[in-house]
Amino acid sequence: MQLGLIGLGKMGGNMRERIRRAGHEVVGFDRNPEVSDVASLKELVDTLDAPRTVWVMVPAGDPTRETVKELSGLLAEGDLVIDGGNSKFTDDQANAELLQDKGIGYVDCGVSGGIWGLDNGYGLMCGGDEQYVERAMPIFDALRPEGPREEGFVHAGKVGAGHYAKMVHNGIEYGLMQAYAEGWELLEAKDIVDDVHGCFKAWTRGTVVRSWLLDLMVKALEETPHLEGVSQYSTDSGEGRWTLEEGINLAVPMPVLAAALFSRFTSRQENSPQMQAVAALRGQFGGHEVMK
Amino acid sequence: MQLGLIGLGKMGGNMRERIRRAGHEVVGFDRNPEVSDVASLKELVDTLDAPRTVWVMVPAGDPTRETVKELSGLLAEGDLVIDGGNSKFTDDQANAELLQDKGIGYVDCGVSGGIWGLDNGYGLMCGGDEQYVERAMPIFDALRPEGPREEGFVHAGKVGAGHYAKMVHNGIEYGLMQAYAEGWELLEAKDIVDDVHGCFKAWTRGTVVRSWLLDLMVKALEETPHLEGVSQYSTDSGEGRWTLEEGINLAVPMPVLAAALFSRFTSRQENSPQMQAVAALRGQFGGHEVMK
Amino acid sequence: MQLGLIGLGKMGGNMRERIRRAGHEVVGFDRNPEVSDVASLKELVDTLDAPRTVWVMVPAGDPTRETVKELSGLLAEGDLVIDGGNSKFTDDQANAELLQDKGIGYVDCGVSGGIWGLDNGYGLMCGGDEQYVERAMPIFDALRPEGPREEGFVHAGKVGAGHYAKMVHNGIEYGLMQAYAEGWELLEAKDIVDDVHGCFKAWTRGTVVRSWLLDLMVKALEETPHLEGVSQYSTDSGEGRWTLEEGINLAVPMPVLAAALFSRFTSRQENSPQMQAVAALRGQFGGHEVMK
Amino acid sequence: MQLGLIGLGKMGGNMRERIRRAGHEVVGFDRNPEVSDVASLKELVDTLDAPRTVWVMVPAGDPTRETVKELSGLLAEGDLVIDGGNSKFTDDQANAELLQDKGIGYVDCGVSGGIWGLDNGYGLMCGGDEQYVERAMPIFDALRPEGPREEGFVHAGKVGAGHYAKMVHNGIEYGLMQAYAEGWELLEAKDIVDDVHGCFKAWTRGTVVRSWLLDLMVKALEETPHLEGVSQYSTDSGEGRWTLEEGINLAVPMPVLAAALFSRFTSRQENSPQMQAVAALRGQFGGHEVMK
Repeated sequence: MQLGLIGLGKMGGNMRERIRRAGHEVVGFDRNPEVSDVASLKELVDTLDAPRTVWVMVPAGDPTRETVKELSGLLAEGDLVIDGGNSKFTDDQANAELLQDKGIGYVDCGVSGGIWGLDNGYGLMCGGDEQYVERAMPIFDALRPEGPREEGFVHAGKVGAGHYAKMVHNGIEYGLMQAYAEGWELLEAKDIVDDVHGCFKAWTRGTVVRSWLLDLMVKALEETPHLEGVSQYSTDSGEGRWTLEEGINLAVPMPVLAAALFSRFTSRQENSPQMQAVAALRGQFGGHEVMK
Repeated sequence: MQLGLIGLGKMGGNMRERIRRAGHEVVGFDRNPEVSDVASLKELVDTLDAPRTVWVMVPAGDPTRETVKELSGLLAEGDLVIDGGNSKFTDDQANAELLQDKGIGYVDCGVSGGIWGLDNGYGLMCGGDEQYVERAMPIFDALRPEGPREEGFVHAGKVGAGHYAKMVHNGIEYGLMQAYAEGWELLEAKDIVDDVHGCFKAWTRGTVVRSWLLDLMVKALEETPHLEGVSQYSTDSGEGRWTLEEGINLAVPMPVLAAALFSRFTSRQENSPQMQAVAALRGQFGGHEVMK
Repeated sequence: MQLGLIGLGKMGGNMRERIRRAGHEVVGFDRNPEVSDVASLKELVDTLDAPRTVWVMVPAGDPTRETVKELSGLLAEGDLVIDGGNSKFTDDQANAELLQDKGIGYVDCGVSGGIWGLDNGYGLMCGGDEQYVERAMPIFDALRPEGPREEGFVHAGKVGAGHYAKMVHNGIEYGLMQAYAEGWELLEAKDIVDDVHGCFKAWTRGTVVRSWLLDLMVKALEETPHLEGVSQYSTDSGEGRWTLEEGINLAVPMPVLAAALFSRFTSRQENSPQMQAVAALRGQFGGHEVMK
Repeated sequence: MQLGLIGLGKMGGNMRERIRRAGHEVVGFDRNPEVSDVASLKELVDTLDAPRTVWVMVPAGDPTRETVKELSGLLAEGDLVIDGGNSKFTDDQANAELLQDKGIGYVDCGVSGGIWGLDNGYGLMCGGDEQYVERAMPIFDALRPEGPREEGFVHAGKVGAGHYAKMVHNGIEYGLMQAYAEGWELLEAKDIVDDVHGCFKAWTRGTVVRSWLLDLMVKALEETPHLEGVSQYSTDSGEGRWTLEEGINLAVPMPVLAAALFSRFTSRQENSPQMQAVAALRGQFGGHEVMK
């Protein structure tokens, strides 16, 4: 089928390639003319045959909201917009309503896979009406990994459910990474253990903790056996924060996610104010020396 | 090669089978005569040709310590004992010294794989002297999964390092399980999400969180889509506790493991004393009603 | 001075009494005619001399927002509204702007003290313009505890800062309560300790952990030495959640608050879904028996 | 009464002074001859009238164990040894048995109060037989704060219970400090809040969070309003670790204590290995830039 694809960055560019490999026609637009197939959003819309399907793959937040708004003025009744970016699920309902007023359909789609997706396929989580999800299925099938559809794709629920599932996926990811990281530090700290890299590698088959993230950890250790020179500075992309906020809203305890998120916050502080306070308190009550 | 195997329970029985499939001779002993190949530990030792290799696969703690002690009286110089049980790494040094006095070698070996190991192979982590690890390598090769040796086996370090690596492996496992569990609860709690089972299944290919534990979670949800009727009661086998103790000893922060372990403790309490205390305090200062 | 006081419940009623004891005139309004001094909000406004000062002490959220809105229609330029309820700080800016359009001032005031405030005085935290805070100072002085003003009152900052400081105060309170509660459970669990109540009582003087909350805990234990029959069910009033959300927004790690809040969430679950998931996973990989 | 006091450091020296102020005779021994009343442990024992009471106030661990051992050779049947140091409760049973063989009594006594104890009195928690606790009561009464005995002293239980109660006291203290510290950081981070020091000071009367630690925090902020130049480096004295170990042993969830302890561990790391691992993993799967 034919797809309009807006945003041809690291993710979008690879996705265009994978969809084309599957035999579909992709008209891509990006603000960067070097990678763009057309000169403007309007040209993209004019190029596509009605009813059009347009996939938005631009940064979450204002860029996505503005793109959807602009599309609502360019597209026609019967067209379909898919937001495949990392939007917060709370944006989806607003987007869907804006488009619905013009008779344009909306599907939100969380996409997992990072730089590996071009070859491995992308994990896809969708939200929206059945009819719209069905219409875009050839594209979903092109993007998802080989194998049974349900092992790389889900229609998770109503509008917003796709981004919600992707958000939770990322929240889980925080916890998984932190679990491996804690274990790695402990092994590195123990005198009787000589080959921590070897332990992680040995876990890649036959053990309970084997996973794709473990494979990546082994790969990282192959490059830098003791992570020499790697900074602790760890950013967070927002989805971990949103997941924790949802835990708060729905009264779901999320101690592992919270621990992982807070560890990232701390990793970015040169001098933790709260630990300054602890040190100052210790100095007050115990006559403990406070380092300045 | 020839192996004496002590303990033919759920794990040991399957291991005997897998080693035999690989073409080795296994003489097994178990207190249960129905599964045992010989009538006594002495008969086991007498049956084996020197230098003997004896694998101990009995419950950790007293049973293992007593078996090793008994073996130290039965085996001869040049023999080798491997403890493949879930012993605490602190037992290994004592076992090794006891046997060393008689010229008997010792290797500790953490084994991962559970009931799936018979067919998939077992992940193996060893500690001890190179010469002893080398001698038992045919058995390790028989037990570990197909593929490159280093992807299912590691000689992690000195005596104790094998059980230590296995302990940390299990500690990581606690965190991974809790991470998936938190995400599952959050998805189940969200109104716009209709197909949580489908989400987990869709994550099994192409996503960042794919893993063997995720596959098992999908399997569990296939049996009981919303875990209807499953009790929250979660035991802990000891290795999570030991890992946390080691974090304390070595000043390694382990917030994710601690959270996972504490959640299990709480899952077994009918009425949490500490939350009774919180409720009582709230009743005192706020005139909040305390439920009795 | 003269004050209009809206909301004469558990808190408001006591506050009217304390302000009157200090020699001020209070005209109180409550929907419950049995405790109200006037029949309507309009009558309250008509009764007061301009420029009026009106203290709103009704439940946070819609009731407060609606009361402020109604007041904006009844009050005149130069009047002053103080919101002393447990409003979220994000409401304050909106309230202030609504009133400012009519030339009416606004101060937010967090109030701590619970049922003990009538006799002990209330801890007060204010936000807003200096001129408005100054105008209401006689009322603040009446409400706060005896002693130096700065030991029971603070002008914390701009509009919203009062409720913000009160919110953080409550967030801290969650952590303090949980810390005592954990210690209490541990002492109760230890065989060599016979007199846990005695330990808490002995801590009330001369120790590092002495506090008002500790005194309350001792009081609770005097009533019920082992908290026999007290339910673990612990509600949360919202301010702990807001504080954690702010930690997320400002990238401030708050592991203690998060732990305390999650413990309350868990205390209200009969069967924790996430621990059902952990139990189900254990059943899958280890052949561990799952309790149903 | 007459007391032998071993160890005249920061704590012991002040305690000698306080006991003397109460009218008792104290013979003090310290390795530092400048502060010691006698030249040796033997001279101390010879100077005291039988039955003797000797208070040991030296560093926990080997120094205390060796002092008790030496005393067991110098003292006579009917004498009494009190360990007032920060010993781990597991040392007490061994000490008691060693002395019991010679007919010498033993009491363990946790002491709280730090440098403030000389004037405020010390909080005391004892373990041991009633007869021995009774015999030393005049000393306990001299050391504890003014007021009812039970508000500064407890006979908590059997041998070890005093140090256990003190250990839990310190574990609680970790949580309390961290709770205030988190709140302080959050207030400092918020733009609308201008006077964080003022907030803490305003909380010292009439609020739910008032405590001695809060008073100390106010004092620290009076010296350094924003803790400028204070290092985050926070040591831990061991008792927090022991308390967490006991939580693990007795299956008591202690998320707040664990969080506080881990924060101290992290505060002492220049580059957190586990966060290096998280950063390295992020670099692998997302093409995220890793800072080196």
